Amino acid sequence: MLNKGYRKNSMFSRSKVKPPALGMRPVKRHAGVVGSLETSTEGFSSFSCNALVKVEQNKILHDYDVRIKAGFDEIEPVVQQLVVQQKRPDFLKIAHTLIRDNLKLSLSNEQLTILSKDSFDSNAFYAECVFEQFMSMSDDFFRNDPLCGQNKAEAEALFKRLGFHAVGIAACSDGRLAHFSTYVLRLPYSFPRRKFHAGTLFDVSESVRNWVFIEHGRFREGVPNSADDPTKYLKIAVYHYSKSDPQHQGCAAHGSDEHKAAESALLKLNDFKQAIENRFGCGSTIQTLLIGINTDDDSLKIHVPNLYGKVCLQRFVETETLFLQTTGMSAEQARLKIRQSVDECGGRSHESMASMNSLVCWFIENNFSQIEYVRNYENGFYQDIGHAERFIGVGNGFEEVQLRNLSYYSFLNTVEEGLNDVNIGIKIFTGLNLSKGLPIPIIIRCDYDGKVPGSRDRAQEKALRIERALHERYQDLSRQGQLKTMCTLRDNTSHKPSERVLGLVE
Amino acid sequence: MLNKGYRKNSMFSRSKVKPPALGMRPVKRHAGVVGSLETSTEGFSSFSCNALVKVEQNKILHDYDVRIKAGFDEIEPVVQQLVVQQKRPDFLKIAHTLIRDNLKLSLSNEQLTILSKDSFDSNAFYAECVFEQFMSMSDDFFRNDPLCGQNKAEAEALFKRLGFHAVGIAACSDGRLAHFSTYVLRLPYSFPRRKFHAGTLFDVSESVRNWVFIEHGRFREGVPNSADDPTKYLKIAVYHYSKSDPQHQGCAAHGSDEHKAAESALLKLNDFKQAIENRFGCGSTIQTLLIGINTDDDSLKIHVPNLYGKVCLQRFVETETLFLQTTGMSAEQARLKIRQSVDECGGRSHESMASMNSLVCWFIENNFSQIEYVRNYENGFYQDIGHAERFIGVGNGFEEVQLRNLSYYSFLNTVEEGLNDVNIGIKIFTGLNLSKGLPIPIIIRCDYDGKVPGSRDRAQEKALRIERALHERYQDLSRQGQLKTMCTLRDNTSHKPSERVLGLVE
Repeated sequence: MLNKGYRKNSMFSRSKVKPPALGMRPVKRHAGVVGSLETSTEGFSSFSCNALVKVEQNKILHDYDVRIKAGFDEIEPVVQQLVVQQKRPDFLKIAHTLIRDNLKLSLSNEQLTILSKDSFDSNAFYAECVFEQFMSMSDDFFRNDPLCGQNKAEAEALFKRLGFHAVGIAACSDGRLAHFSTYVLRLPYSFPRRKFHAGTLFDVSESVRNWVFIEHGRFREGVPNSADDPTKYLKIAVYHYSKSDPQHQGCAAHGSDEHKAAESALLKLNDFKQAIENRFGCGSTIQTLLIGINTDDDSLKIHVPNLYGKVCLQRFVETETLFLQTTGMSAEQARLKIRQSVDECGGRSHESMASMNSLVCWFIENNFSQIEYVRNYENGFYQDIGHAERFIGVGNGFEEVQLRNLSYYSFLNTVEEGLNDVNIGIKIFTGLNLSKGLPIPIIIRCDYDGKVPGSRDRAQEKALRIERALHERYQDLSRQGQLKTMCTLRDNTSHKPSERVLGLVE
Repeated sequence: MLNKGYRKNSMFSRSKVKPPALGMRPVKRHAGVVGSLETSTEGFSSFSCNALVKVEQNKILHDYDVRIKAGFDEIEPVVQQLVVQQKRPDFLKIAHTLIRDNLKLSLSNEQLTILSKDSFDSNAFYAECVFEQFMSMSDDFFRNDPLCGQNKAEAEALFKRLGFHAVGIAACSDGRLAHFSTYVLRLPYSFPRRKFHAGTLFDVSESVRNWVFIEHGRFREGVPNSADDPTKYLKIAVYHYSKSDPQHQGCAAHGSDEHKAAESALLKLNDFKQAIENRFGCGSTIQTLLIGINTDDDSLKIHVPNLYGKVCLQRFVETETLFLQTTGMSAEQARLKIRQSVDECGGRSHESMASMNSLVCWFIENNFSQIEYVRNYENGFYQDIGHAERFIGVGNGFEEVQLRNLSYYSFLNTVEEGLNDVNIGIKIFTGLNLSKGLPIPIIIRCDYDGKVPGSRDRAQEKALRIERALHERYQDLSRQGQLKTMCTLRDNTSHKPSERVLGLVE
């Protein structure tokens, strides 16, 4: 195995710091770095001192994370080996063996011609391997549902019971938030709609359009429920910070200023809510929720709305504190403690927000598993507390990307609108890849509606337009072979994997 | 008066050709070129041989057209005079007099500094005058409603009675179609939603989004009518051709190929209809209508849908033929003749489409007035049969632009998506303006919802983003001062004029 977990030692990573001491914590620790293709639980704890933690689920999530990331992280050492050995007469044989054994990939003849050229184009080869790993991951994700996220019925029913017919999550493009819904909140990937923008600065108009589509479905088809049901759309905005290195490892778009990040996200939430209320009237409204995540350990600040549903920056509960406070308690005791804290936080008279508070409690309970996940598998503190993304994703969809630091993802329809997001992504990858002589791989995704003839063609046109715009915008990188792109499409009415389409740029 | 109607002699204009002979036509002709600021009906006929023509309305429309265009067309000669006289000691005095008397403009001190500089910047001055004429026109349009288009109640009621709760018109960006709804179809400007794209290649996804917004209003607020009413959304696509010079003066985006232009517009209509039907199900559908316009004389080919509502390229009525056939008849006889022709065209059993056919008949009757307008004021054949636009408009809205050949207008949210449209516009203005040493003036418009706080700010951000994208895309023109832009915003929930906002680029 070559250069295990190299990403963890990227220029952005920091030395490990011990997590805060935990009183009566019997969990065994694993000191090593993950990075084996063969997953193993050896050295990891199979039980938790917190009764609400789902230990088995953690194991499944961790195995998946290790397996997928290893596939990407083996690419660089393979490329390095090939660069060194490109003049050897048995170069092609060596290459084939490395690709098959270390990357578990079978490249097409066309892709292999990169190897046979007079001078080995390491940039093109690196990018092809990243793209193929992505396609292989997408295939596995949709065909095998490794994270059991295709069944959303249970979550949907729970949300509906608590008064919410749909959920949209807006988070930062930062790769350290990419696993937010599946890992940090433990939601099935297919349930919430996710949007990622640098600094969580989501597009209010786009959110309004999406809201109207959902409401229309309720009126016309009773999907997800009838418009007569007194449920609301829940919009969650997620900002982030680093407790251990607040000045450097916070949100780049807000200069690592936690307060500014939180304030900006809240402003967007309020703008969205006000746009709905003022534009559509007749009692139209949404519920908002603001969540902060400490990217060092995935613990949360949940800004519990007050009895009028209003979110404030100063009013929040911290899941790490609650995790510590409930350690050693029975599940029942722990849930009671959580509930008390949330109710106290939300205000004395909390009848009007009882359902909202129940939802917050459920989120906290789910997050406990993630806190334990980081304690158990990451020694309570991610080694890659900084950026360590493997590729940039732009477009919409990308359901198969549910892993922390796998991808820097910007939700966009045009590079023109998403330019700020992409610029930050390019800056991050200048540090991660260009500095090591590797190109920046960008995967473009455009989802389409398989029920509508013509929709796929339009998605393809859009993907090619975005690809063209990227190469025009970053001409210098493109000319030097340092910007590599792949266009993908996906029918989002099915569980089919994404499909690669021939791009405009080689 | 200087260089009256210079636009009419642009490189694209052609020599006049007599209109087809009209049997018993007593209408007097006016041989002169329009271009006087003082409007006059002298020499024009105050009656028509076709009983369905609204002669008085024609006079109002014509007076408005002459008045507004003169304001723009006086700019070039003023600039020419100033260029010649810039070294004279009394230059500033001459300039003030010309601006006040010939352009009827009062420029701000800031704008006048352009004149006081050491070397007179004729590009900047020309553009400022175009922009100020636009602002003055916008002000007049919304405050005084010169075309009586703010009252849409009557038209709305008529459409509803005929089974349509809303109408969207997609036409070509070509300036020769800019007057389509108000002049050619005689609809109040505030009623239909207009979208302009080169070659009528409108964005199906955007149309779907707009449709959902309208349907949502019906469900939630019963506006424009209840969702239970069995009415449909009507989408009209308009393609164009030139009968007198089909090879050169047709649609540039389709290589002046009339068949291709019609086919492409029909394809878009069908795609839109299918997207609605397949995506939303439950009987969701729209009605489509295809109309071709002969830009020489504003007569139409209306493709009457068959008894199943289907539009075909081969099935149409020509309004010019019907105009000739009904000349000399009483209004009642003429209407009967129109009805018979439309019913015959739509198919024998036309009960199912009786309302649609009534609407088509009404369009034909309205178009008769426009045919007479061109006969009376333009000798039956526009002198500027080619391009003679005064500026390029990009963005959305632009309700105040209702005049033929006033503006080349591309409906867009991003330059990235609308690039093809803008490229064609730049090409047209390379011939119209750059060839004469004049810069290309582009007016950017972003509408907002005045009821929604924050909406104006978002529109402003968008306008500035579009402005930046234009100057980046056409860097060479921009650097040479040949691309001039102005950002405008408008609250589309009111009748307030557009507002100029400070752009990023001087």
